[in-house]
Amino acid sequence: MCRTLEGVATVDHHVDVSSTVVVPANSSSDDLNLIPPLNFAMVDNGIFRSGFPDSANFSFLQTLNLSSIIYLCPEPYPEGNTEFLKSNGIKLFQFGIESHKEPFVNIPEDAIREALRIVLDARNHPLLIHCNRGKHRTGCLVGCLRKLQRWCLSSVFDEYQRFAAAKARVSDQRFMELFDVSSFKHLPMSFSCLKN
Amino acid sequence: MCRTLEGVATVDHHVDVSSTVVVPANSSSDDLNLIPPLNFAMVDNGIFRSGFPDSANFSFLQTLNLSSIIYLCPEPYPEGNTEFLKSNGIKLFQFGIESHKEPFVNIPEDAIREALRIVLDARNHPLLIHCNRGKHRTGCLVGCLRKLQRWCLSSVFDEYQRFAAAKARVSDQRFMELFDVSSFKHLPMSFSCLKN
Repeated sequence: MCRTLEGVATVDHHVDVSSTVVVPANSSSDDLNLIPPLNFAMVDNGIFRSGFPDSANFSFLQTLNLSSIIYLCPEPYPEGNTEFLKSNGIKLFQFGIESHKEPFVNIPEDAIREALRIVLDARNHPLLIHCNRGKHRTGCLVGCLRKLQRWCLSSVFDEYQRFAAAKARVSDQRFMELFDVSSFKHLPMSFSCLKN
Repeated sequence: MCRTLEGVATVDHHVDVSSTVVVPANSSSDDLNLIPPLNFAMVDNGIFRSGFPDSANFSFLQTLNLSSIIYLCPEPYPEGNTEFLKSNGIKLFQFGIESHKEPFVNIPEDAIREALRIVLDARNHPLLIHCNRGKHRTGCLVGCLRKLQRWCLSSVFDEYQRFAAAKARVSDQRFMELFDVSSFKHLPMSFSCLKN
């Protein structure tokens, strides 16, 4: 079922009459039955973040119309998730970043840098970034993106801490602080909020 | 200064070649000098949330190219903020919802319902929702929007708590749980993530 915009008295250039929403045929619209993954959030246009999605989250993920997933853990992707990706035409980019507790954290800068290039490529959008809990590895990648977007460090850390909460790591924040974004300067910020 | 998309070897229908980003002329691109308001986040396409913005946040807010602000407090809007709105052509919708501590919280359902109608109207996008701290009143409005988007309640509460943190209120969560979205059923979800 597909509904188009209706009931708008005055149609001017602000109205996007092409907007549609797909309501899954197997559910009543009264149900609150979409289950976003743990720590799900929208980062910017076409960029989402979360913890590890499981089968309960697949219906929700389908509403995002994803083109790609960036997976930041070394463990193989579970079969059920791989099947979901295949049947929905979603590309998987895996970066095997180990999870270590402080003081042995060592975020590999090269992996984050390469992942950031994939995030920045609008051909990969809409895109979901996830690790295991959506706190540390995902938080570092999003934090580096925020630096590219010229957010001041205290705001980058504030966002990181909102997701990491009691598990926030000074070492992750130091990594983001020291991450050099100058090599990205030739890239356009096509993901910017200005896209709206 | 305005940069357009460049350096993309293959141009296909995924590439948005019209994307641009404006770098303020008075700053070096090396600076991390954009300061989002407290508790700033993207809610969905064209919808943002935050705490009360002050003059330090104005440069950041300009990058969002806002069309409207929904302000959820009864206090008059400060003169500096009103000036900022005027000079940037931003409409202000004010809903004077009082701030009460538990157990005297009484969120006025009519105000949230009317605010939600404004959020849902794409002619008001891009739009920023804010109250004082971006936790309770803003959290309730966003939570009601999530119910319309058919998020399960535990996910609605999880998002609310991510912003409210130690200040989370059971009464706010009860309000969101009891909020009846059936009167919105005729409205399209033009703000859905599917817009991407």
